[in-house]
Amino acid sequence: MDLTLDGDVVRAGQRARERFYDSRGYGHAQNGDLDLAPVEAAHLLYRGDIEAVDGMDFRELLGSSAVPMVDFLVYKDLRDRGFYLTPARGDWVENPDGVDFVVYPRGKGPWDDEIAYRVRVVGERDDVPASSLGDCVLAVVDEESEITYLDTTDREVSGTSDASVPAVDGELLTERVVCWDPPSEVYEQAFYGQRLDEDAVQLSLVEAAYLARAGDLRVEGGADAVVERGRAVEGERFDRRLAVYAALREAGVVPKTGFKFGADFRTYADVESVENLGHSELLVRALPAAHSFEPRDLALDVRLAHGVRKTMVFALVGGDAVEWVEVQRLTP
Amino acid sequence: MDLTLDGDVVRAGQRARERFYDSRGYGHAQNGDLDLAPVEAAHLLYRGDIEAVDGMDFRELLGSSAVPMVDFLVYKDLRDRGFYLTPARGDWVENPDGVDFVVYPRGKGPWDDEIAYRVRVVGERDDVPASSLGDCVLAVVDEESEITYLDTTDREVSGTSDASVPAVDGELLTERVVCWDPPSEVYEQAFYGQRLDEDAVQLSLVEAAYLARAGDLRVEGGADAVVERGRAVEGERFDRRLAVYAALREAGVVPKTGFKFGADFRTYADVESVENLGHSELLVRALPAAHSFEPRDLALDVRLAHGVRKTMVFALVGGDAVEWVEVQRLTP
Repeated sequence: MDLTLDGDVVRAGQRARERFYDSRGYGHAQNGDLDLAPVEAAHLLYRGDIEAVDGMDFRELLGSSAVPMVDFLVYKDLRDRGFYLTPARGDWVENPDGVDFVVYPRGKGPWDDEIAYRVRVVGERDDVPASSLGDCVLAVVDEESEITYLDTTDREVSGTSDASVPAVDGELLTERVVCWDPPSEVYEQAFYGQRLDEDAVQLSLVEAAYLARAGDLRVEGGADAVVERGRAVEGERFDRRLAVYAALREAGVVPKTGFKFGADFRTYADVESVENLGHSELLVRALPAAHSFEPRDLALDVRLAHGVRKTMVFALVGGDAVEWVEVQRLTP
Repeated sequence: MDLTLDGDVVRAGQRARERFYDSRGYGHAQNGDLDLAPVEAAHLLYRGDIEAVDGMDFRELLGSSAVPMVDFLVYKDLRDRGFYLTPARGDWVENPDGVDFVVYPRGKGPWDDEIAYRVRVVGERDDVPASSLGDCVLAVVDEESEITYLDTTDREVSGTSDASVPAVDGELLTERVVCWDPPSEVYEQAFYGQRLDEDAVQLSLVEAAYLARAGDLRVEGGADAVVERGRAVEGERFDRRLAVYAALREAGVVPKTGFKFGADFRTYADVESVENLGHSELLVRALPAAHSFEPRDLALDVRLAHGVRKTMVFALVGGDAVEWVEVQRLTP
């Protein structure tokens, strides 16, 4: 069976529709005939189900510009895993924006109404705009053609921790604020700062700036002095982290430093007291909304979070608004 | 006991020497008297062993510029862990360069001849030049004043894997080279590339460039075409990664992609065949020799490597020379 390449569509006939669409979910049925995307035709060539496309065999079709190698590798991998899938073309699937394949649940196909994954194919060297994440699965093809699937979801963050404390006095010492004799609630209940000894509590600059803005910390120069110090040592990253810190506290979640995990914050959703602290649930990285990821950095963050049984969440900051995107490894 | 601040030294007398140096390892004995660094005097103040330094109590001394808070926190932490340590001043210790404290084994002190750790204090926002690593322990103080100890060591890399293969033909397809029918040794023994199916093997650009330069891969345009493609998609990072790849192969170590771990390579020291592949030992990140780390990135890499039971090694590339620095978490 030799099929014809017509622009970016491979035209197949009615017999092909019966063989490949009706029973195996390839392509898009069109007036009783079958249209295939070149990547689908490449897969049929690869399997030996067809002999040629416009006279080209598998190697020739891959060598042409019609089929990006990364698309073929992901298509093949998902087929190998037992899925039917459809290239996300405008007139073939609903909501094709931002994805390359629509994958159906195992046992289902394009004639059903269910979708398992919306997949975007990415090479490990491609930039991935943070704003393009959420409601899609990234299939990242690395330089050795291994595929890592990363599920990205828009999400909310919320908890039951209480951020309010009695007012406290502090002293700004370079990159921290020391409260020499604070009410015990500051650390014990609301989990601000870290003990220096039985009396004194040290606050990070971001904790101190948040408390000072809320009127709960008295420090020489007020909140402005703390924020100014933060900007002096961290630049605009400080404002971004402060916006995320405030959004988390206001959502009832306690952020603490994520330094040991290479993140901005780890978070506790339901703090009643430091004594009965549970496991922290999220690792949060604060980024400007316009950030673009290198897939390798995404893989690093997500892998680390998984290894410490936490969920990786990116906080995208645009002005005062913070949007949250969760990214998890996925085995389809 | 009120001591005197004289420039950057706190002068104490003979009684202080007996109390603090002879029995507890503080300071530097000088003609029967005692000199203390301000950070040591701060610790004695903090403990209540002395009352004042030049009329200043603990809070006042910390508030002055004489004692950086991060130095105090690390000094206190190491004392709390049961160590004696000496500030690394030129005339107080040997080899003071690049470190802040010389720490003695537990039970030993400045009057002994043994050193457990050479410690450099770093704030989480300080840049750490890669060239300054090796033969020191970084004590990184994060924004919440928690301390992470990172042991850095210059090291060699070596193994027994054989890199030689029979010559093979390949086809350059965008970001990979496909060998449609290579001798089985290429993948099975020398572990180049990744299987596409029973016959074909895909090589990464860095593998292909290495093999083509060695004369073991025939590809249209030769090694130059592969390197050119590598530079086109990766910039100068490609040359750096190729230098590290070649150095590893020549040391008898097989590098494979470290993408899933966010690194450049994971490595296998003793590959006899892919069938009996062991656990990969190292994660390698290739960096320019002039690179400066953010401590948070270091913490991320080292934590991840630890979690997957591998050792993090940074390959510092200057021209064709590659130096290796191992970084591991340490609990003193």
